Amino acid sequence: MPAKGVAVTADVVIAGGGVIGTAIAWRAAAAGLDVVLADPAHGDGASLVAAGMLAPVSEALFGEGALLRVNLLALARFPSFAAELEQVTGHRVGLRREGTLAVAYDAGDYAALMRLTAFRRSAGLDAEELDSRACRKLESFLTPDVHGGVLFPGDWSVDNRRYAAALREAAAAAGVRVVPDRVTAVLTASGADGRARGVALADGGEIGSGQVVVAAGSWSGAVHGLPEALRSAVRPVKGQLLRLRHPDGMPPVLTHTIRATVRGADVYLVPRTDGEVVVGATQEERGPDLTVTAGAVHDLLHDAMSVLPVTSELILAETCAGLRPGTPDNGPIVGSAGPGGVLLATGHYRNGILMSAATADAAVACLTGRAPAPEWEPFGPGRFLTNQGAR
Amino acid sequence: MPAKGVAVTADVVIAGGGVIGTAIAWRAAAAGLDVVLADPAHGDGASLVAAGMLAPVSEALFGEGALLRVNLLALARFPSFAAELEQVTGHRVGLRREGTLAVAYDAGDYAALMRLTAFRRSAGLDAEELDSRACRKLESFLTPDVHGGVLFPGDWSVDNRRYAAALREAAAAAGVRVVPDRVTAVLTASGADGRARGVALADGGEIGSGQVVVAAGSWSGAVHGLPEALRSAVRPVKGQLLRLRHPDGMPPVLTHTIRATVRGADVYLVPRTDGEVVVGATQEERGPDLTVTAGAVHDLLHDAMSVLPVTSELILAETCAGLRPGTPDNGPIVGSAGPGGVLLATGHYRNGILMSAATADAAVACLTGRAPAPEWEPFGPGRFLTNQGAR
Repeated sequence: MPAKGVAVTADVVIAGGGVIGTAIAWRAAAAGLDVVLADPAHGDGASLVAAGMLAPVSEALFGEGALLRVNLLALARFPSFAAELEQVTGHRVGLRREGTLAVAYDAGDYAALMRLTAFRRSAGLDAEELDSRACRKLESFLTPDVHGGVLFPGDWSVDNRRYAAALREAAAAAGVRVVPDRVTAVLTASGADGRARGVALADGGEIGSGQVVVAAGSWSGAVHGLPEALRSAVRPVKGQLLRLRHPDGMPPVLTHTIRATVRGADVYLVPRTDGEVVVGATQEERGPDLTVTAGAVHDLLHDAMSVLPVTSELILAETCAGLRPGTPDNGPIVGSAGPGGVLLATGHYRNGILMSAATADAAVACLTGRAPAPEWEPFGPGRFLTNQGAR
Repeated sequence: MPAKGVAVTADVVIAGGGVIGTAIAWRAAAAGLDVVLADPAHGDGASLVAAGMLAPVSEALFGEGALLRVNLLALARFPSFAAELEQVTGHRVGLRREGTLAVAYDAGDYAALMRLTAFRRSAGLDAEELDSRACRKLESFLTPDVHGGVLFPGDWSVDNRRYAAALREAAAAAGVRVVPDRVTAVLTASGADGRARGVALADGGEIGSGQVVVAAGSWSGAVHGLPEALRSAVRPVKGQLLRLRHPDGMPPVLTHTIRATVRGADVYLVPRTDGEVVVGATQEERGPDLTVTAGAVHDLLHDAMSVLPVTSELILAETCAGLRPGTPDNGPIVGSAGPGGVLLATGHYRNGILMSAATADAAVACLTGRAPAPEWEPFGPGRFLTNQGAR
């Protein structure tokens, strides 16, 4: 018998309708679970602002070996996941496999790129060093001033907006019900080891369910009923980016994703097959601030035009800001947390699009009593709960 | 008896609902005429993109003495016109009288500013030279790198969007009827000296009237039934500009309008009392192209940040592009043209907001059989019709 005030019940309720929550919802429903997804805006957060880079190789940094391994797992899973999504919905999601060309603007930038490339190679990653001329042979509009670059053929991209829209459609087709409201709390049964019994909504209602997935991105910390150490582990990291378009009749100015270091500043340009070029992104610790600032737009345009001068001729179609869910160790938080029946799938920081498919696999494994892939082992919520003895 | 297909009749029909057309409509209706104004979008062209500078002094260039005189007439008329508009509508239009501070970024920019200032003074205009320190005393956020400047106390600004909205409201209150369609042609009675009998609309309808005012800005040349030499005299000159806003809690960064020359490039920053700062503007000969380009936004932000570094902290609220109605001699076209009963009020180029009040006076004089002020004499349509002997 449902508790008082519970109008909707399900096997699983998912808080958050970005690519993480929606991918989990789709796969969970496909696995036979009855799923409700709650989001007031159905995922207009970081998922739609993102650039859609699938770039475990060019993102790999010193000291993040475990993160690299889970990102490589995610990349390996992505194409089959995207293919099934395209087959189910009949829509293309714009997966591009031309690879990523990292370029260095000056000698200092080049030295830094070479150090990172050596590390990436030592991790077994494919990387091809190119001089300035060879870079321009791949991308003819690059400035001749480019010092040199490295091609990472394993780093791809996807049109994050088409991908998110396809996920929503697939989830709906699989029977996922959407409640357009914000989850304010995970509800648990009374008693010391009380399991999840559903969620409370901002409008005062409740959804009853034996399992709850918190996939609310940078807002995950606002969900009551989770251990305080987990709530404070997720913070918003502001990113501003630009969406450019080719004017009518202009041929494409880019084929590969370009990652450039311009006198120490990082900028990327991600081309879409439909003529869009995404330029990003700032990383700002400013809390939940979504304003687009003059300085950020200037710097992104300046750095993009420094490496690809023809950028100046493109149309500035959109400026936007999003909030990535950052964590203290830059790794995601995926796994069971606190009360029984509660699963976290958040903290994906800069790699939410990339990790969405693999995260859905891991979450559905947990929801159906199976073990996630071992690459997820270092990224359980327990690592932030040591003081509470939870792991 | 109205002609076939004429559903609407009036004393005067005005083609174009920007500030020029709407100011004329208001004053003509206030003078007792029955007025219809036709515009498919009710003036979302150059009038709403503009910055609202009322700047005859800092705009005055060598060799444009007649234009300076009509601009000074327009500025002298503006305050009483705006005061009546505010009284009639009950809305403030944001007139600011702090003056314009022209600043030069380097020595070359300063030399050019001094030459222009000498010319402006020789024309009797008020100008006060200021060194870098005195400039920063007026505007404390200016970069200390500013070489020097000149204060033009007679150059003001108005909030062009509030002003345009107030004009629309005043016109409606005075009885002006609006037809939301585009005028495609001025219709004349048959015969060699056939007078105007109304206009044709894009939807196939007609409006019957004995007098027609073409105030269609950069689209004036698209109106059939005008002499070819007049239609080709007006061309669109693209301008891109930015609307910035102060973040919550930041005190105003500007009081005066700033006009800066940064290594030869001109940029202006116009502050509003509500926290908006307008930054403009490009001047591009690209036909009727309304795209916002990455290069233009970059350059405007770069130049603004060069003179006022705190600009980088402002919110980039809007980027926009408009089409100024340019003419071969940079002067407006105001007066009777071609067929009897046809009046032109277009070609105001960079000064449409400034000239709107005085243009309304001149147009209503023509419509009611009086002579416009003598300052308008050099700006009749006849100057473009010499080959046809129309003047």
